[in-house]
Amino acid sequence: MSTDRTMRNAPNAPIAFLKGHGTENDFVIVPDPDNDLDLPARAVAALCDRRAGIGGDGLLRVVRSAAHPEARAMAGEAEWFMDYRNSDGSVAEMCGNGVRVFARYLQRAGHVAAGDMAVATRAGVKRVHLAKGTGPEGAATEDGDITVHMGRAALPDDEVTVTVDGRDRPARHISMGNPHAVTFVDDLAQAGDLLSAPPVAPASVYPDGVNVEFVVDRGPRHVAMRVHERGSGETRSCGTGACAVAVATARRDGQDPARTGLPVTYTVDLPGGRLLITERPDGGIEMTGPAVIVAEGHIDPAWLAAAR
Amino acid sequence: MSTDRTMRNAPNAPIAFLKGHGTENDFVIVPDPDNDLDLPARAVAALCDRRAGIGGDGLLRVVRSAAHPEARAMAGEAEWFMDYRNSDGSVAEMCGNGVRVFARYLQRAGHVAAGDMAVATRAGVKRVHLAKGTGPEGAATEDGDITVHMGRAALPDDEVTVTVDGRDRPARHISMGNPHAVTFVDDLAQAGDLLSAPPVAPASVYPDGVNVEFVVDRGPRHVAMRVHERGSGETRSCGTGACAVAVATARRDGQDPARTGLPVTYTVDLPGGRLLITERPDGGIEMTGPAVIVAEGHIDPAWLAAAR
Repeated sequence: MSTDRTMRNAPNAPIAFLKGHGTENDFVIVPDPDNDLDLPARAVAALCDRRAGIGGDGLLRVVRSAAHPEARAMAGEAEWFMDYRNSDGSVAEMCGNGVRVFARYLQRAGHVAAGDMAVATRAGVKRVHLAKGTGPEGAATEDGDITVHMGRAALPDDEVTVTVDGRDRPARHISMGNPHAVTFVDDLAQAGDLLSAPPVAPASVYPDGVNVEFVVDRGPRHVAMRVHERGSGETRSCGTGACAVAVATARRDGQDPARTGLPVTYTVDLPGGRLLITERPDGGIEMTGPAVIVAEGHIDPAWLAAAR
Repeated sequence: MSTDRTMRNAPNAPIAFLKGHGTENDFVIVPDPDNDLDLPARAVAALCDRRAGIGGDGLLRVVRSAAHPEARAMAGEAEWFMDYRNSDGSVAEMCGNGVRVFARYLQRAGHVAAGDMAVATRAGVKRVHLAKGTGPEGAATEDGDITVHMGRAALPDDEVTVTVDGRDRPARHISMGNPHAVTFVDDLAQAGDLLSAPPVAPASVYPDGVNVEFVVDRGPRHVAMRVHERGSGETRSCGTGACAVAVATARRDGQDPARTGLPVTYTVDLPGGRLLITERPDGGIEMTGPAVIVAEGHIDPAWLAAAR
């Protein structure tokens, strides 16, 4: 794959892309190591359009930190900067599943090997670990699970209620940087159809809206969840939601690594796949799961020019 | 693009694909001229999955008619066979927007030029016309509208009713090979949210379900529509639905080419774009509109092997 196409200088050059996903949180990946591409919001939205474009929950532009003004200061710690965009083209800070797919791309392109690395994001440098995978005869492969450090959870003492089908359910308020309300159910069908956002009260706790998680026990330290993301509706996966669910469940179970000094790991099944969430005694939360590249190619330059 | 990869012989060879759409009816296109690929339903469904795969309303496999047992008899009339699959992997006969995107691929790949051609499908040979497009300085381009002959409409005399929000609306029963109920409204919002299939009565008229179209006038011989497709829900475009709407509107307007001996053309605006529908004195219906290739590349062979 050519890595030095310059949209600014050559508007009709094809632009390389890949499509990948982590637990079915999916992305259009655009390698742009030298920060040559001018991808305005309209172009990103067109690329993420599932019918008129390629389709994705967001776009990951892969830029060398040294070549990007927002990331240059992080270049010593993290060689690569994740320019993450929402599917409407707006700039976003971070996406946990996105970082894992981003790291898989770097590995696949030969920029990094299995082991520890760091990714520069608008929310700072994120530490990542790429595990070796295991092939059919025990040989190491390049498709092992990928772990990203997600920061810490905050657990305010607010009493919160989620209402579904006229029934009020107590919920736990968890912040992972973004706001969550986690409620336990006996059956995930009790979440209803999730075609609209479940009302959460009091509204004053969540002035900017809230992501709502419904959780059911599957076994010891093993839960399954559904999530309604603010602005997106029900989704197949939500990385911060899985972290919030793991922390809420740990506290319900009387588990607190800060008190015991021992990390605790929960298995969280989402509609799009399985994540392992580990909370460490220092409060740091790690999210581990698969990341997959489905296809790669080039965007039609005439189509993109029309979309821009 | 290499055209002779043999999945059967080399399971780890990458498979070429393109993504394109016609009025936002979108497809994964897989060139396979020599009929080498073994694409079972599970692989097609994985490719059409919008989050775990590439994503599309269906898959168009491009095979030389002479190389395919279902099309060999048509090879004299139509060099290329459209192996159309639904997004669940099942085999389907025909798709009008699909034929237009299929023809655009053939043009782009250099297999056909602007003008008349024919495509072999499981519903027989379909005649297609690729118009020359017009570039910025009047130069001919390769992106003109594409016309496909859609066959004839049948208009049984059934009295049919569509119910939305408790209100019964008279509808016209039209068959384009598949069944339609077309109803006129003052405002497309009167179709409601279309989250479920609007009830159509009497049910005995449509033993295999029905596609329901809501139509509003936009001007002389110009309408806009929304459609609920059986099995798919509300969609951005439906080729046979646009034909059914044009014919129902023509009859409402007292237009019948079989009586006047003159063709009549309606402009039909769908959520995903604009189609022109022409009915000829012999009853033949032509559908004309854009067809776009967005991107091309290769499917990751390891991913596809896991999906199969």
